[in-house]
Amino acid sequence: MSTIAAISTPSGIGGIAVVRLSGPEAFAIASHHLTLPKPDASRPAASFSRFRKDGNLIDEVVVTLFRAPHSYTGDDTVEISCHGSLYVQQTILQTLIDSGARLAEPGEFTRKAFLNGKLNLSQAEAVADLIDSTNATSHRLAISQLRGGYAKELEQLRQQLVDLTALLELELDFSEEDVEFADRRRLHSLASQIYTRIIALRESFHMGNALKRGIPVAIIGRPNAGKSSLLNALLRDNRAIVSDIPGTTRDTIEETFVVKGTPFRIIDTAGLRHSDDPIETLGIQRTIETVVQADIILYVHDATQPFLQALDDLQELQDIRTFKDKHLFIVNNKMDLVQENPIAPYRTFPISAKNGTGLEDLTSALARIASTDFAQAPDVMLTNVRHYDALGHVEQALLHVAKGLADRLPADLVAIDLRDALHHLGTITGQVTSDEVLGSIFSRFCVGK
Amino acid sequence: MSTIAAISTPSGIGGIAVVRLSGPEAFAIASHHLTLPKPDASRPAASFSRFRKDGNLIDEVVVTLFRAPHSYTGDDTVEISCHGSLYVQQTILQTLIDSGARLAEPGEFTRKAFLNGKLNLSQAEAVADLIDSTNATSHRLAISQLRGGYAKELEQLRQQLVDLTALLELELDFSEEDVEFADRRRLHSLASQIYTRIIALRESFHMGNALKRGIPVAIIGRPNAGKSSLLNALLRDNRAIVSDIPGTTRDTIEETFVVKGTPFRIIDTAGLRHSDDPIETLGIQRTIETVVQADIILYVHDATQPFLQALDDLQELQDIRTFKDKHLFIVNNKMDLVQENPIAPYRTFPISAKNGTGLEDLTSALARIASTDFAQAPDVMLTNVRHYDALGHVEQALLHVAKGLADRLPADLVAIDLRDALHHLGTITGQVTSDEVLGSIFSRFCVGK
Repeated sequence: MSTIAAISTPSGIGGIAVVRLSGPEAFAIASHHLTLPKPDASRPAASFSRFRKDGNLIDEVVVTLFRAPHSYTGDDTVEISCHGSLYVQQTILQTLIDSGARLAEPGEFTRKAFLNGKLNLSQAEAVADLIDSTNATSHRLAISQLRGGYAKELEQLRQQLVDLTALLELELDFSEEDVEFADRRRLHSLASQIYTRIIALRESFHMGNALKRGIPVAIIGRPNAGKSSLLNALLRDNRAIVSDIPGTTRDTIEETFVVKGTPFRIIDTAGLRHSDDPIETLGIQRTIETVVQADIILYVHDATQPFLQALDDLQELQDIRTFKDKHLFIVNNKMDLVQENPIAPYRTFPISAKNGTGLEDLTSALARIASTDFAQAPDVMLTNVRHYDALGHVEQALLHVAKGLADRLPADLVAIDLRDALHHLGTITGQVTSDEVLGSIFSRFCVGK
Repeated sequence: MSTIAAISTPSGIGGIAVVRLSGPEAFAIASHHLTLPKPDASRPAASFSRFRKDGNLIDEVVVTLFRAPHSYTGDDTVEISCHGSLYVQQTILQTLIDSGARLAEPGEFTRKAFLNGKLNLSQAEAVADLIDSTNATSHRLAISQLRGGYAKELEQLRQQLVDLTALLELELDFSEEDVEFADRRRLHSLASQIYTRIIALRESFHMGNALKRGIPVAIIGRPNAGKSSLLNALLRDNRAIVSDIPGTTRDTIEETFVVKGTPFRIIDTAGLRHSDDPIETLGIQRTIETVVQADIILYVHDATQPFLQALDDLQELQDIRTFKDKHLFIVNNKMDLVQENPIAPYRTFPISAKNGTGLEDLTSALARIASTDFAQAPDVMLTNVRHYDALGHVEQALLHVAKGLADRLPADLVAIDLRDALHHLGTITGQVTSDEVLGSIFSRFCVGK
């Protein structure tokens, strides 16, 4: 097992930076360049020190030792808090590598933590979610998964499946005597119970994913109604948390805005925006797809145009089957150009994206949806598409189990499906895993975590 | 005295980030949100903890306490090492501010360190230089200044000035009796000694500044000779340390390249590059200024043109008075287009900026200059323009002192000049200072340091 090293703080120049070193040789490698504090039994030990390379002073640092297993990774770990100069960071890292450490791969510290049993796989994934979190909601979901409530729920399910298998295997042992020790009805009821829970968990994915990635919102409307202006106005007003910090990667938050801690995600409506024939546009497949994915539809009307236009479009929308169960907001834009809000059979939000007026009412309405539809979110929620897929396999296997029990198939055949269910459940928390799966999970991480 | 807080690690997303809190209320404020370790007497105390806001878990962190005066600032300090999520960093910082901390201004932690006597002003400036350092040379200069050898030298000078003043004041006390207690010749010799040392220090500025900001290099030559291509080739090959880390600010390193740890700085030769009449160009004021500033001149010749062109240009260069004492390298570019290097009365460097051939010879020659001209750099070197200016005032004052002594001016008049010298010397290490000077020094820093 090798000792790995990386710069763990964000890349760039800052007041301080942290270089992390973890593995069986961590203390030995660090001691070539630093005077280390006496490692404490269970709590980290910190001290001031000087980092030297070939006798030359590189920096005055604070060094913290974490003795195995009382570290993030579970291995001996050294954290060197140095000045945040590019040269100092790189030199310390390079010196540790020259002394026998290996440059860590993305997520390798967390991978060590998983392999050492400090975290299960769903908790490790929660660490990446936590680091990516940019708002209160995605943060809450990640923390909850990291704390392990979700893993506990899965463990209960696994235990129930193990119990079920045990009962079946009991039957199997006695099969020669052709005695059905296990009450098949009891088995069936147990399987149904588990199945129901799996279904509920899978159903929580829609909500979990919406809360994690942002509640999907489609902005639609005729060309020139001001859809892009509305988007920009929403982004401008509600991205404060992110834009406070310079240097944020734009890619990860593109077209996501946060209202009272809840992220909303704009689904691309480019297909609509650039069409020449708006009525035709409303009918095309792309619009339907956009609307299907959205929980909320913002229909933008140009207040300088007759409201009849909007009524026509909305009529078309109502006819689309997939439009049901969505929240529809009619936004009457360009109110700076007209005298008053038109009398309409729907509630409309009079705004001026240009002047920024009326936006507060609209965002409050969005926040209300978050707090009604999403507030009763269950404690344990599926937010990870990998878990969703795995539970899909569990669901299928359990269907086979239920069918096998109903059809009075031999216990050993039913047991195969049960073991299949257990296998897929195990991939979520990592009892069952493969290098390939681990590789794809940890490649999401930044280097240094 | 208020308690200040800031994110001290580089801005952005990373594995971990550090939020720093320092001041008399640091432990009290932190204890509202964290379980703190028992503060140790003189060494930092670290422990795992959970950061909570209104009872909600924000993050699992490592918290390190530094008890006054054993901290960077000299005040009680808490460092919270959290997950490097934007949301987590901001939330922890905001929570500390809501609990009574104040957002730190740029460099305010270091300013506290200065005000608490942990660092003198030249050491505080070295901290900023250290953080900005991107190569071995600028790093070594900053570390040396931080370690205080330079400040010690200044302290010796100050002590000598104080001694001189004391001798003069002794004379002053007895002036009624018209007895010259102090031997004026001895005074004069002491003043000369100090003066000589000041001159030497001021002269080290040229070298110190060149090593810190980069040895100044002028690339000149006729249009289309390939000056920009050479610059780009040098930058591409020798910016590895900086470009390894994404997100580096380009502004601070623009047109600086590093050869074997020594920075070279290209002086803008735009005036040359875009002129239509190259011979005329060589004569204009701008070129002279460029050449005056440079220690090294790279004359780029187009190998497809007759070498006589170069000889003409070089003749012009030789005629410029300011050209003396510069290193001249004649670079024969576009060797990919010709068969062989021309026979020339000067050594030339045959290269192809396009193919990257021959560059190694050129950079080795640059490195040799660094190791000959600059290797005998004195231990104590002036690198800071503020210090250079202050020493200029000291120099002037000492000239007046020497003149006053020679002219047998009354001791009280000479003492005025001596106190002036002491005053300006004191501004360097901060014995004498003003809010304005401090403000301008610390505004250079990043927030969080």
